[in-house]
Amino acid sequence: MPTSDADRRDWRPIATVDTVILTLDEGSLKVLVHRRQRAPFAGAWALPGGYIRPGEDDSAEEAALRVLRTKAGLPNFYIEQLATYSGPARDPRGWSISVAFLALVPRDLLPDLAEDVSLAAVDGLPDLAFDHGRIVRDAVARLRGKGAYSSLPAALLPESFTLPELQRAYEIVLGDHIDASSFRRKVLDLDMIEETGEAQAGVSKRPAKLYRLTGAARTFNRTLGAA
Amino acid sequence: MPTSDADRRDWRPIATVDTVILTLDEGSLKVLVHRRQRAPFAGAWALPGGYIRPGEDDSAEEAALRVLRTKAGLPNFYIEQLATYSGPARDPRGWSISVAFLALVPRDLLPDLAEDVSLAAVDGLPDLAFDHGRIVRDAVARLRGKGAYSSLPAALLPESFTLPELQRAYEIVLGDHIDASSFRRKVLDLDMIEETGEAQAGVSKRPAKLYRLTGAARTFNRTLGAA
Repeated sequence: MPTSDADRRDWRPIATVDTVILTLDEGSLKVLVHRRQRAPFAGAWALPGGYIRPGEDDSAEEAALRVLRTKAGLPNFYIEQLATYSGPARDPRGWSISVAFLALVPRDLLPDLAEDVSLAAVDGLPDLAFDHGRIVRDAVARLRGKGAYSSLPAALLPESFTLPELQRAYEIVLGDHIDASSFRRKVLDLDMIEETGEAQAGVSKRPAKLYRLTGAARTFNRTLGAA
Repeated sequence: MPTSDADRRDWRPIATVDTVILTLDEGSLKVLVHRRQRAPFAGAWALPGGYIRPGEDDSAEEAALRVLRTKAGLPNFYIEQLATYSGPARDPRGWSISVAFLALVPRDLLPDLAEDVSLAAVDGLPDLAFDHGRIVRDAVARLRGKGAYSSLPAALLPESFTLPELQRAYEIVLGDHIDASSFRRKVLDLDMIEETGEAQAGVSKRPAKLYRLTGAARTFNRTLGAA
């Protein structure tokens, strides 16, 4: 007979991780989803997720990176905790707790999506399995809440970008038009970006300068999470 | 024989919650700790925490509120997720996952601390059980990071307070001296506080006006969490 909660393994919730990969694709903010092969929700779109495997994973974060590798064929990204979701009803298999992680990934780092993997626009999301729709909404709210005051939207761009591309990333993230001249002044004043010394290749007479995030902005960018 | 991860109950991590109650007491930022009765870490100070009980709790948050009631005799506070801690080494009983919650509580709402409950200054914390020292440091970093730009420090005060009391709360949270006249101007400009119409009782000739948070600031205050 069990003598304490710790021994009552049947009292333990199911413990999983879920991952929200956000990217800019064809002018929209999109989330990476995959089609579930197995019950529950077989055939439905879902965030890449899976069980934490205590024998294999050193932390929930390691479990999330393993899931991204094995279920979506992705390399190790910089991921941060979004929030943890729990309760008796969110997974039909039983009382569950899921640690959700968030990553902002440039589209060019998601080159060959596997057959059952897709990018879905976050505005007009299809029905997702479990409470994954809510998790995506929380992730987008986090990005939109922090994006206006940080260099976060630049994390969605390739390593070098033009000023109009950066402005467009902010506009897509914030869902709002931005004045070009004040935007230019602001990002340059903040020492957020620096010239790479190169110009955009393959375009006409006046190729736009290419910029990259400064080291300081890159560090600051790692404040996607809560702490 | 188990057919999937879901069936392998022995694969499931231990699932717990931990709670960080921060308050202002005798001029210091303090955290509520209790002395553990049982192994592991019997006799050590720890954050109030405990197992999630799927039969009893509707969510990790509900589990945290139950723990605060039963282990620290506290009423239901407004708590928010801080972060989730996981891994094979943080709990000697096995691979564990703990959802940590944070609350900012005025000292006058913690009137009669139980015998094995104490308030410990966050600067100069005693050794705590598990990884609870790290959890407290993360909570303080969250408060200090957000405090400068929000009305959060006021959540540590009673419902009505004087301007010097509010200034002192900011100084304690931020660990820095604040200029009185610019502070006064700023908090009044921001429509963060309003006069209650009353003055501080029991003091001499020129009693200080009492203030309270405005409704807007109260709502904004609920941004302690990540989203």
